Amino acid sequence: MSVAIAVVGLGRMGKRHVHTLLYRVPHAKVVAVCSSTPEEVQWAKSNEEYKGFGISVYSDYDEMLSHPGLDAVWVSSSTDVHASQTLAALKKNVHVLCEKPLSTNLEEAQSVVDAAKKHPDLKVMAGFSRRFDASYRDAANKVKQNAIGSPFVVRSNTCDLLDNTGFFVKYAARNGGIFVDCAIHDIDLSLWYLDNPTPKSCWATGTLQHHPELKDFNDVDNAVGVVEFYGGKIAYFYCSRTQAHGHDVCTEITGTHGKIMVNVIPRSNNVVLADNLGLRNEVQPEYWQRFEDAFATEANEFIASILNNTPVPLPLEAGTKVMLIGRALQKALLSGEVTRFDEKGVPLTAI
Amino acid sequence: MSVAIAVVGLGRMGKRHVHTLLYRVPHAKVVAVCSSTPEEVQWAKSNEEYKGFGISVYSDYDEMLSHPGLDAVWVSSSTDVHASQTLAALKKNVHVLCEKPLSTNLEEAQSVVDAAKKHPDLKVMAGFSRRFDASYRDAANKVKQNAIGSPFVVRSNTCDLLDNTGFFVKYAARNGGIFVDCAIHDIDLSLWYLDNPTPKSCWATGTLQHHPELKDFNDVDNAVGVVEFYGGKIAYFYCSRTQAHGHDVCTEITGTHGKIMVNVIPRSNNVVLADNLGLRNEVQPEYWQRFEDAFATEANEFIASILNNTPVPLPLEAGTKVMLIGRALQKALLSGEVTRFDEKGVPLTAI
Amino acid sequence: MSVAIAVVGLGRMGKRHVHTLLYRVPHAKVVAVCSSTPEEVQWAKSNEEYKGFGISVYSDYDEMLSHPGLDAVWVSSSTDVHASQTLAALKKNVHVLCEKPLSTNLEEAQSVVDAAKKHPDLKVMAGFSRRFDASYRDAANKVKQNAIGSPFVVRSNTCDLLDNTGFFVKYAARNGGIFVDCAIHDIDLSLWYLDNPTPKSCWATGTLQHHPELKDFNDVDNAVGVVEFYGGKIAYFYCSRTQAHGHDVCTEITGTHGKIMVNVIPRSNNVVLADNLGLRNEVQPEYWQRFEDAFATEANEFIASILNNTPVPLPLEAGTKVMLIGRALQKALLSGEVTRFDEKGVPLTAI
Amino acid sequence: MSVAIAVVGLGRMGKRHVHTLLYRVPHAKVVAVCSSTPEEVQWAKSNEEYKGFGISVYSDYDEMLSHPGLDAVWVSSSTDVHASQTLAALKKNVHVLCEKPLSTNLEEAQSVVDAAKKHPDLKVMAGFSRRFDASYRDAANKVKQNAIGSPFVVRSNTCDLLDNTGFFVKYAARNGGIFVDCAIHDIDLSLWYLDNPTPKSCWATGTLQHHPELKDFNDVDNAVGVVEFYGGKIAYFYCSRTQAHGHDVCTEITGTHGKIMVNVIPRSNNVVLADNLGLRNEVQPEYWQRFEDAFATEANEFIASILNNTPVPLPLEAGTKVMLIGRALQKALLSGEVTRFDEKGVPLTAI
Repeated sequence: MSVAIAVVGLGRMGKRHVHTLLYRVPHAKVVAVCSSTPEEVQWAKSNEEYKGFGISVYSDYDEMLSHPGLDAVWVSSSTDVHASQTLAALKKNVHVLCEKPLSTNLEEAQSVVDAAKKHPDLKVMAGFSRRFDASYRDAANKVKQNAIGSPFVVRSNTCDLLDNTGFFVKYAARNGGIFVDCAIHDIDLSLWYLDNPTPKSCWATGTLQHHPELKDFNDVDNAVGVVEFYGGKIAYFYCSRTQAHGHDVCTEITGTHGKIMVNVIPRSNNVVLADNLGLRNEVQPEYWQRFEDAFATEANEFIASILNNTPVPLPLEAGTKVMLIGRALQKALLSGEVTRFDEKGVPLTAI
Repeated sequence: MSVAIAVVGLGRMGKRHVHTLLYRVPHAKVVAVCSSTPEEVQWAKSNEEYKGFGISVYSDYDEMLSHPGLDAVWVSSSTDVHASQTLAALKKNVHVLCEKPLSTNLEEAQSVVDAAKKHPDLKVMAGFSRRFDASYRDAANKVKQNAIGSPFVVRSNTCDLLDNTGFFVKYAARNGGIFVDCAIHDIDLSLWYLDNPTPKSCWATGTLQHHPELKDFNDVDNAVGVVEFYGGKIAYFYCSRTQAHGHDVCTEITGTHGKIMVNVIPRSNNVVLADNLGLRNEVQPEYWQRFEDAFATEANEFIASILNNTPVPLPLEAGTKVMLIGRALQKALLSGEVTRFDEKGVPLTAI
Repeated sequence: MSVAIAVVGLGRMGKRHVHTLLYRVPHAKVVAVCSSTPEEVQWAKSNEEYKGFGISVYSDYDEMLSHPGLDAVWVSSSTDVHASQTLAALKKNVHVLCEKPLSTNLEEAQSVVDAAKKHPDLKVMAGFSRRFDASYRDAANKVKQNAIGSPFVVRSNTCDLLDNTGFFVKYAARNGGIFVDCAIHDIDLSLWYLDNPTPKSCWATGTLQHHPELKDFNDVDNAVGVVEFYGGKIAYFYCSRTQAHGHDVCTEITGTHGKIMVNVIPRSNNVVLADNLGLRNEVQPEYWQRFEDAFATEANEFIASILNNTPVPLPLEAGTKVMLIGRALQKALLSGEVTRFDEKGVPLTAI
Repeated sequence: MSVAIAVVGLGRMGKRHVHTLLYRVPHAKVVAVCSSTPEEVQWAKSNEEYKGFGISVYSDYDEMLSHPGLDAVWVSSSTDVHASQTLAALKKNVHVLCEKPLSTNLEEAQSVVDAAKKHPDLKVMAGFSRRFDASYRDAANKVKQNAIGSPFVVRSNTCDLLDNTGFFVKYAARNGGIFVDCAIHDIDLSLWYLDNPTPKSCWATGTLQHHPELKDFNDVDNAVGVVEFYGGKIAYFYCSRTQAHGHDVCTEITGTHGKIMVNVIPRSNNVVLADNLGLRNEVQPEYWQRFEDAFATEANEFIASILNNTPVPLPLEAGTKVMLIGRALQKALLSGEVTRFDEKGVPLTAI
């Protein structure tokens, strides 16, 4: 009883997803991988481990979708083809787990949501991995159990280790900007913990400290944004591409009777070294080390929803609102103006 | 070799300042105290400890300024008389340590700065106590020693324990609003660590969670504000009157090559209790427990500047810019609009 | 390419090992389980998950060893049959991963080591799970990289959450005593980090605080023991069955130029709750939550050593010395006398 | 209303005590200091600060005791003259605060206790500074309030920063050995928290890692000791002269329903630095930074007991038992044998 799954996109993340499926998801069977990048196809074809597991390698996504017996696909390609690849899979009656975001274009994202609705038999899920992290879930449970009263402020950071290899900058042009690419998880968490509030207004500012090339993409490498929601709730975010100490992702949820802090002191493990510099702990270098277990949980729960024909743990449309707020913050960042929404959460100006 | 000093204002804070001067400042001699509140005068007159130290008690501030041999006064009255009491002391050739802020009115604050300039022989200092805290000073030294490269983002919180006694609300009407009263130290810290940058724009939002009475004063009990400075620097603040766990004041300074965190995990002491709830530490209930040592350092350094005729450790005019930013944030909070400044830091609209 | 493995013993731990093999060890295929306890056999036979994976259920260990195609067995039964079940498997040419300890009887343990030597083609490993934990391995790497100079003191604790259900006491009679059952991992860690030193003398003392029934087994529920090694090295241990806050396992390695601390502040995840009690984190209730990943790593590495025909990651004989020290501490605990060893590590009195 | 006090001994500690008395103890007036070391006398005579406070400098202790109006003396000389100087002060009707220990010789220590009993009008106190530390007091209060049930195990460390200047070794010959000099505070804390239990047996072992010269004094630079008390209570200690990271003093009190941890993660202040090494905090270099406030509290409470004629906060005889256990551990360390006590706490062999 297992799900035949393929992974499309064999960049850093796609390879990791294959690994997760092979080693952490017993009810998934990886039958195929696909990439439009010749080097990645080459790499996959000569990969002994993939051979051992009998994985077929495709360079054409449509061909891959016709792989015999294929049940599901994990879309891990670049953001600009997330939507089209998801739509193509739906047409072939293939379940989809699509990396966030569905699209940086709001209409396109909505078209995927609409298409999914027309396939109620298919499981379609956007990969908001933090929703599957044990600590974030513990925080959600504590909120639900009223440990902090009524939550009204969320602070959330996504701060990446400075990448001086050029890798990050190479992909930055297509990622939609810092609030769309980097804050998207923080926005999602704030909607989760604040019980899906409606945005009222937002403002943002940013700065360029290490990657002057980003100026050409109208982007920054460090930014602060604030979202005011209707009903007296607030979320604020700090995103950075330039941290010295590691991947530092933290969230605080303040309620009327307490506060929950998630990963405010990041630690790569349980080790502290005491030497002539004092006491220190290392920090995870990347989101992968921080969220590897969450990706495994996500994959297992997605596979289980297919096998048991239960709803996906995270509704697809949730991502649309997250993207809307991300783009509103990005617009505020670029314009210097407050972006405002009506009481239904519709932006008052084009974003 | 000691300085004869008086304390005006015998509220919670004034009493603490007297205590600090008596027990922690060997070169100060408290000769007088003064209050306009009859109960406080009564309390002081019957205080055996004060009698033991030979402290005179006044109900009239001008009379107190004529106390024989008086060298200095610590102004710890309510904010609305800070400026007038400071000016009166200067006229009497008395040194002044004035609690922050000099005034919530910018012109009045400036008038005190101007008056002080006309008395170069007198020491006049505004009490930004965090500047004297060992941890904040260590952070400043680390910044100076280039431990984090060039600092460009400051996050700073001032979060008070929820006060359900009515004490806080009673004084809230006169404190100038949450960004003036509560964030003033955070603003000051951001100017310190970011090397005195010029504000470019700011925005803020807030909410009322516990103290609906504040609505009448156009105030909130929780607020988030962001200040963008010229030169690509950013400060952002969270202020709260409603914390469940204690007085939680923290600051993070992010630079191009590192980050300094001050008091991000607040602890009242070195004790951790492990029981069936897990591991826990208590938090200081009030700023006093957190900054008692800083007040002693502040007082000692002020007294030393008088005795040695050296500059006060903190120039008086520093407070004016802090107040300007505080009021700009407060205006943004109330108007929902971005407040902007020209390149000299002059607000583009009246604040 | 996978290893057909069976698990013997379906107590709490055996069930967890089955789960680990099914969900975390892709190259293992669980073909059989076995228990001598009728209830456990019954439970396994009616287990849908086991059926789904095609697992055969045995009540007779020898029959199970004859399961067609069986490659390996994970011995997770009670300690008193560890040795005999391991020996039986060896006779059938089946690889063995045996839970620690091989035996509480030193001669019997040695007989297993001897038997294993006669089967150099078979992989036989004792399950010292902490050796596979990411933090303990990081500590070992740091020691190897000379981060703390030459290590000379190890402090290590194994402190269990108080179990008032009677479960613990039920099994206590057969576990060999607190230093054999509970400190065995700590002793193993001290040998690891101190570079396999030779014991010189040891002493111990203990107390009974919650489980008076242990008196009948000549045991205690809290104990402290110290081991002096030749060459000026020291290890000391605290074991407890009665902690209120959770499973608290920590280790400190002190060297000539630094110290490494592992899990000195235990945390179940990255969450901190701030409320009117202060700031608190929860603690893992059991070794399982703390070491679940380590068990998966252990199983994967054992399976890999079979598939690749490489040495097992942990030599079997390592366990013998650990047991010797554990029994010497237990003897010191009961006798009140120092137990001494000659320069080859042979105890000077029977233990 | 103040106490005229003199400080004898102007080594590092004596100078600090003078400073504490001048700046933190308003009801004390330092009238004299004394040293038998010509360089220290010279230094004191030319000290402008001392002159400013009108402090007389003596090279002869007996002369100093005759200083007009002298009320009290703080004995901060080397341990070998603690007892004689205390006795001399008592004869002159002068109150005494004597640094721990009264003497490394048990009879001599007892003679001081006896002499003090003959002067019930005089306050005589041994300086166990940790008893005045806010965190240790908080721990004691929590124990009293039953936060951890009935305490039965204390772990306590005194670990000094490695001193390669030769300063430590110079004084080591006269300090009575590592358990007498270094563990004395830990022993005292264990008696405090375990409600003054009677020792039953103890054992210890040690090693020489950095200071081979200590071998000539029959001492070690790192040692572990365990004390078993009657009634099922246990204390164990680790003392070190060779830490790389700072002065690391921690204590854990385990009870039937919880545990209290004091300073298990030592921190010099509230600052954490995040850079490419991870997150780190500095550690106090010396006991002074850790316990400066405790010394001020100790001095203030001693002075208060004189002014109010109340009992000293810490009875003198408490120190005798501490010393007895310290010497028993030192004997165990040197002999390798268990030192045992009868049910009244009298050692069964000469120590």
